[in-house]
Amino acid sequence: MNDSSQAPLIPDEGEVGFVEYQDFISREPFRFESGGSIPELCLRYETYGRLNSSKDNAILICHALSGDHHCAGVHSMNERKLGWWNFMVGPGKPIDTSKYFVICSNVLGGCQGSSGPGSINPETGKPYNLDFPKLTVRDMIKAQSLLVDFFGIDRLHAVIGGSMGGMQTLQWAIDFPERVGRYIALACGARHTAQAIAFNDTGRQAIISDPEWKLGSYDPTAGPDQGLAVARMMAHITYLSDIGMEAKFGRKRSTADESKEHFDVEFEVESYLRYQGQSFVTRFDANTYLYLTKALDRFDLHSPDSLDATLSVVTAPGLVVGFTSDWLYPPHGNREIVEALLRLGKDATYTELAMDAGHDSFLVRAPKLYELIRRFLSR
Amino acid sequence: MNDSSQAPLIPDEGEVGFVEYQDFISREPFRFESGGSIPELCLRYETYGRLNSSKDNAILICHALSGDHHCAGVHSMNERKLGWWNFMVGPGKPIDTSKYFVICSNVLGGCQGSSGPGSINPETGKPYNLDFPKLTVRDMIKAQSLLVDFFGIDRLHAVIGGSMGGMQTLQWAIDFPERVGRYIALACGARHTAQAIAFNDTGRQAIISDPEWKLGSYDPTAGPDQGLAVARMMAHITYLSDIGMEAKFGRKRSTADESKEHFDVEFEVESYLRYQGQSFVTRFDANTYLYLTKALDRFDLHSPDSLDATLSVVTAPGLVVGFTSDWLYPPHGNREIVEALLRLGKDATYTELAMDAGHDSFLVRAPKLYELIRRFLSR
Repeated sequence: MNDSSQAPLIPDEGEVGFVEYQDFISREPFRFESGGSIPELCLRYETYGRLNSSKDNAILICHALSGDHHCAGVHSMNERKLGWWNFMVGPGKPIDTSKYFVICSNVLGGCQGSSGPGSINPETGKPYNLDFPKLTVRDMIKAQSLLVDFFGIDRLHAVIGGSMGGMQTLQWAIDFPERVGRYIALACGARHTAQAIAFNDTGRQAIISDPEWKLGSYDPTAGPDQGLAVARMMAHITYLSDIGMEAKFGRKRSTADESKEHFDVEFEVESYLRYQGQSFVTRFDANTYLYLTKALDRFDLHSPDSLDATLSVVTAPGLVVGFTSDWLYPPHGNREIVEALLRLGKDATYTELAMDAGHDSFLVRAPKLYELIRRFLSR
Repeated sequence: MNDSSQAPLIPDEGEVGFVEYQDFISREPFRFESGGSIPELCLRYETYGRLNSSKDNAILICHALSGDHHCAGVHSMNERKLGWWNFMVGPGKPIDTSKYFVICSNVLGGCQGSSGPGSINPETGKPYNLDFPKLTVRDMIKAQSLLVDFFGIDRLHAVIGGSMGGMQTLQWAIDFPERVGRYIALACGARHTAQAIAFNDTGRQAIISDPEWKLGSYDPTAGPDQGLAVARMMAHITYLSDIGMEAKFGRKRSTADESKEHFDVEFEVESYLRYQGQSFVTRFDANTYLYLTKALDRFDLHSPDSLDATLSVVTAPGLVVGFTSDWLYPPHGNREIVEALLRLGKDATYTELAMDAGHDSFLVRAPKLYELIRRFLSR
């Protein structure tokens, strides 16, 4: 692994530089909340910055549904794709890698190197596919906690994430209160609404009804690409906002309009979305999509008892940030988490940023958000 | 055709009773706005009430995307499915068939008996499929105008419709100002937003990417059912509202939860939506879905010049009704139509009903809406 101080070249000032991912492998069976297990666990991860000698400067970043461990920097001169939170993570950036040691791992159930339905089951030599156990957000963070153990870190300076990453963040504060110094959850609620479940299930149906799905046992080179692309197109709409799409696309016609057949691209927004669908297929696994969306739908901090009961064990100070134009995880769903924490007398704060990027607001450049995160991490 | 006065049995007091549909056939070639044509035109329709001798008591009802000509009553003792606007249309009801002669026809491009992509082209003896010409809302109402001619009606007492029916209604007021006594457009905008186009195109992609679509030339008994079901599931979410779905479904578990496989129904909302998707397939044609959604996306009263320019020809008094929870055709999009009409000095009025049923609010029982329509029709 190269962190910025070791990297031979720094692509841009303030960049984390070149990073290489690593695989953390636990040879012990990993048991899921459902009771199922896998014989060994792999988490692919990247780190940025240096762990100090007292091991108290680590920040864990939890990624969203379509994210991965590559949240900052580039991998090499040949693979120069910037990490998904590159503007947030680096020397002098809000999550300042000159101060903090940052860990980001591909989630359990994922498809970017961590154990997931597409991984090879060492006991059978074949992919798990649907034999991969039922997955919850709690399972994801239990796996991450083993990675944190591996670094010898007792207590994280902070846990932070948006959307599915926000849910993991909250679950960290609940399941490992003594290991979380503070937490920041962005654009996430305490549980999915009926509408959010409905969108997810429609996406799952698009995948499952694709004949190439084959009950999850598709050849990795020929999966349910059409179904996954449709699921992604639909989900992508829910990540944006009406006002944001109107400003970006409106009713602009695609340039190649004239020669079009009946149902080819006519509007720019169609071209954009179809591209999103098609490119997603090249980097994502359909079974992982099924497992992760199910974990999201099942996540429910109001259960088994009440939101207050679930949050009563939290000890770390927390910041929750909602976004005005996020209609997938609407602000009131973010806010109710902090309302419960405040009822419980916890150290917690909520703010709502007026942004037009919808649910994806936490992923776009926003100086106001940078400042909130920078200050909360160092308070 | 049986209207209520002729029907041997009246199912319920105030019902329109038994009705039979009729087919209006024009043996002339029908030319579309795009320049394409079909050698003959069929519109399937129902009527309710009696046309008076001066032929000035006719109301034309325009249906929405998934609607049809059967808007009130039942067809027979054996086919007792109530029309889609049964609570609105009948003796003593808001659209009072003891006063008015009501006409409702399946739209051009439809799949319930009117000429559409699934109809047999008399010149080839085969279905049109994608040889059916490009379709616009203007084409739909041009076809309806021939049906109105057939009845010898010069001027309709009123034109009324919601959603796609609202767009047809507005187009009637624009294209045939002298033939429209008044018009009521519910839950519709002057044009689709980028978000609405995006949802429609995702639905179309679900259909087109279904291998059973076969470039539109599928066997009618084995079409792209999976794609159409997914398109319908997604669209159905956009017809409801977050608050309405939360009240109706929330996170209620499906009763058969225990024995479930990984991705079977777990939540009630999933069960409901999957049923909506599957049942839609039994009554709707995939190519019609493609054609009608395209017509909706292309509808744009701001074009070719401006909304004011388009509406400047309107002479009839108009009522536009938006619904607070309609996020597919949000109230501001309804309102801007009347704002333009008022700028032009036209007789037009707008109101917004606070209802939780989302875009579908115009299809649910709502005494406030009944009263608005009843009064506006008789003013």
